[in-house]
Amino acid sequence: MRSLMQDVPLTLDLVLRRCLETGAHVEVVSVTPAGVVRTTWGDIGRRATALHGVVDGLGVAPGGRVATFAWNTHRHVELFLGVPCAGRVVHGVNVRLTDDEILYQLHNAGDEVLFVDASLTSRLSSCADRLPVREVVVLEDGGTVHEAFANCPRYEDLLDAVPEAEPVPRAEPDDAAWICYTSGTTGRPKGVVSSHLACVLHSLSSMTVDSHAVSREDVLLAATPLFHVNAWGLGYTTALAGAKLVLPGRDASGGALAALIEAERVTVAAAVPTVWVDLLGRASKPYDISTLSRALSGGAPATRALLEDVAGRGLVFHKGWGMTEMLPSGTMQVQRPDSPLGALTAVGKPAAGVRVRLVGPDGAVLPWDGRATGELETSGPWVIRAYLDPDDDSNESRFHDGWLRTGDLAVIHPDATVEIVDRVKDVIKSGGEWISSLALEQALAAHPGVAQVAVVAVPDDKWGERPAAAVVAADGAAPCAAELAEFLAGRVPRWWLPERIEVLDELPLTTVGKCDKKALRARFSSPSRS
Amino acid sequence: MRSLMQDVPLTLDLVLRRCLETGAHVEVVSVTPAGVVRTTWGDIGRRATALHGVVDGLGVAPGGRVATFAWNTHRHVELFLGVPCAGRVVHGVNVRLTDDEILYQLHNAGDEVLFVDASLTSRLSSCADRLPVREVVVLEDGGTVHEAFANCPRYEDLLDAVPEAEPVPRAEPDDAAWICYTSGTTGRPKGVVSSHLACVLHSLSSMTVDSHAVSREDVLLAATPLFHVNAWGLGYTTALAGAKLVLPGRDASGGALAALIEAERVTVAAAVPTVWVDLLGRASKPYDISTLSRALSGGAPATRALLEDVAGRGLVFHKGWGMTEMLPSGTMQVQRPDSPLGALTAVGKPAAGVRVRLVGPDGAVLPWDGRATGELETSGPWVIRAYLDPDDDSNESRFHDGWLRTGDLAVIHPDATVEIVDRVKDVIKSGGEWISSLALEQALAAHPGVAQVAVVAVPDDKWGERPAAAVVAADGAAPCAAELAEFLAGRVPRWWLPERIEVLDELPLTTVGKCDKKALRARFSSPSRS
Repeated sequence: MRSLMQDVPLTLDLVLRRCLETGAHVEVVSVTPAGVVRTTWGDIGRRATALHGVVDGLGVAPGGRVATFAWNTHRHVELFLGVPCAGRVVHGVNVRLTDDEILYQLHNAGDEVLFVDASLTSRLSSCADRLPVREVVVLEDGGTVHEAFANCPRYEDLLDAVPEAEPVPRAEPDDAAWICYTSGTTGRPKGVVSSHLACVLHSLSSMTVDSHAVSREDVLLAATPLFHVNAWGLGYTTALAGAKLVLPGRDASGGALAALIEAERVTVAAAVPTVWVDLLGRASKPYDISTLSRALSGGAPATRALLEDVAGRGLVFHKGWGMTEMLPSGTMQVQRPDSPLGALTAVGKPAAGVRVRLVGPDGAVLPWDGRATGELETSGPWVIRAYLDPDDDSNESRFHDGWLRTGDLAVIHPDATVEIVDRVKDVIKSGGEWISSLALEQALAAHPGVAQVAVVAVPDDKWGERPAAAVVAADGAAPCAAELAEFLAGRVPRWWLPERIEVLDELPLTTVGKCDKKALRARFSSPSRS
Repeated sequence: MRSLMQDVPLTLDLVLRRCLETGAHVEVVSVTPAGVVRTTWGDIGRRATALHGVVDGLGVAPGGRVATFAWNTHRHVELFLGVPCAGRVVHGVNVRLTDDEILYQLHNAGDEVLFVDASLTSRLSSCADRLPVREVVVLEDGGTVHEAFANCPRYEDLLDAVPEAEPVPRAEPDDAAWICYTSGTTGRPKGVVSSHLACVLHSLSSMTVDSHAVSREDVLLAATPLFHVNAWGLGYTTALAGAKLVLPGRDASGGALAALIEAERVTVAAAVPTVWVDLLGRASKPYDISTLSRALSGGAPATRALLEDVAGRGLVFHKGWGMTEMLPSGTMQVQRPDSPLGALTAVGKPAAGVRVRLVGPDGAVLPWDGRATGELETSGPWVIRAYLDPDDDSNESRFHDGWLRTGDLAVIHPDATVEIVDRVKDVIKSGGEWISSLALEQALAAHPGVAQVAVVAVPDDKWGERPAAAVVAADGAAPCAAELAEFLAGRVPRWWLPERIEVLDELPLTTVGKCDKKALRARFSSPSRS
């Protein structure tokens, strides 16, 4: 028996309509080189609607790809909304990539047109003549346009030329909405293609209490970039919720964010743990950030020091686990300031709509008993079933029986709380046994003199692999390797003790701010070792 | 360009899986004549899975209808989950209907089998030999089985006979999940058929902060019956959220609910305003209800006295507007105890996924300016496009250009807040002008001696219609008609003053606890009037 419900396609048109209707007078604030720009979801909705005329005019075929190279601003948000609603696909390119990586992604995604912030044209000048796109459009953010792009069409001119009109649905729920490349620390980045339906469901789920809990009463600061998993979908989520959105533009440093929190009375902000440490540290001293009540964090584990700092300030901490391959929300731990701090490795329970399971090395599904360790696998309506490139080997190796293999080793407790034990690839295979690099990192992080830590495997003739650790000292501390080794000795099995512990000024970082373990491995494996 | 997301059908199988996985150890507590029954979402999930074998065994064809006649218990919840997941349709029949109304609904829905609480078999004995179903199954709640049903199969026996198995998807997103009849105060009730997809989306939306905000940390008491719009979907919502659910069974009086709040440490409860008044009044005196932090209300407007009482206790009040035709969530006002009380008529902003518009008498769409008054129309993925009966005249009269005509007169403010001004049919047409019965009710309710009030139109030879009011006095008060008329005189236009104001012991109620305006109109139109 069929139902008798209205047939409303679950596409980003729903989000666009929310902008135009319930969000008409809700503010969106952007920091640009030209100053602070104040607009509304209503204006963004109207301009996003007009983008259909713009991409038509640029000759982008239905389903064609459009790249962006931009900071978090209202123009970037409207491209992420308007391009998919125009039946095209938007691809946010990470502005911190090398020329070769940028050219690879544009080529691999088949991008036809590139929208670039004026202030980022200089960055692209070194590869301007090799960009594999038909057209470059400059987003006039007030920055200087590099001469290599002086003759490119201007975004505002193109928008001005489109007559105002009502939005017309042009996409189906299963159509591609955006492409984002994984920022894996090994191998070539892989293209992830989201659908309209996945975006809508992910946004609804992100509005639930046990996820990001975004409400129309919130003022949300999105410090996580749109080119990094669509700013965790928070552009769509704030639009659907009708929440005020604050976009920091180029400067997402702790000080700049703290100033924005004060100026815009931000209630909730989204950033990776390293940015939170910066934001809540010395950088926020001059500012009144007392309107802030919630911290959304993800992308990397938070340290105990950060969690204690957050709790001490009375902030609720949303500690998410996820992947680009799932837009990115997978599980969420909502840590309230008055609740006891659980295990650092705990990442909460699966979001409504997301399923998880544990699979052992032999492919058997393991119980949720808080002890059995296996690779975490996930499925759900916003989890991919394949990567963009049909010839990618990962399309075989990363999927199992319809589930995505996350590459994370985990245990699951009977109450469905997931604890990430390690990365499958970061497990150190030493003498036929496994050493958890994450467990070693946590043991070292418990030392009061340690601010940051990373453990990697280095090749070893006798044992196959052995652990090596890099640490950054806490302010005012100067721990030495011997002291740290002694500290570890009582806390981990004797044979886990790292071959080397080095105190560095800073950890090498990837373009999205995670520790670059490839670089660390190279450092430790170099012949300069003692 | 198609996306590369997993194809996970959006059906109640998602909710069933949540029960079995993340909800495995989360409690569901039911009050039955046999005492308090403690089970878990995991058990409910396993039994709901087995229901496929039960309905197969009963010979119900795929897509066939199965009726229930039951209080809010774990068995009823598992029927609402298991029957749709078995590819059949569940129809909760209101246990307060007359024999004729029950027989009409069973016949109209085409129900093949009826599941009835043992404790409700007596109620059905007067029409036992006329029930138009092939089979009646008794749910053994500890009540006495009436002899007319002594030979019927028992639910637990049927379940026991089904071997345990993994759930198998048997429904598509657009398949019917449940049927509920409208409780309209005029005309025959009309069948509303929800889809699986609509249920899933409605539940996700209900978990958002700006709706019912149901969290896995909640203990939710569902006092609103499953036979009344599926208990506002709260069975599915708590299952999806992984929240503990408390079901009051037969006794949903204020005292019984307050006792349950104390015993189960309930954090959020759902009930209509009249039940809230009862619950927060004298009934709760003996009990510690301090765990309660949120009150979900809907189905009728709340009085200022109730809102003030709720705020005074520090409770958050979720004041919803909705309809059976939209499962039922439409808009939501989340009233926090520290925020100023807005207009009583304000019902908040549309839920994410729901669109609203105002249409004037000439069919023109009106602006959201807080002044223009029109009929509220709505659309969205959980709004119906037709009623069950294809020959129902309402399929013409209640739909307009793809939108559902709600029958409510409203204004919409620029910030998207909806204010319900009146029912279209309750507007009193007097001398070619409109008098709002709702505005009159509110003006009368402001009198300190008035606890409840209802205004209806009565025929008038000269003016066409004139207003008449019935009031129930507040505890200890004894207002007379003249005093109330004088009170009104300064507050409404002179020509709005009711022809008659009568003080009654109680208002006549419909089976779902709303004021029965049909009965009132009959009373006021009878020749006994002075």
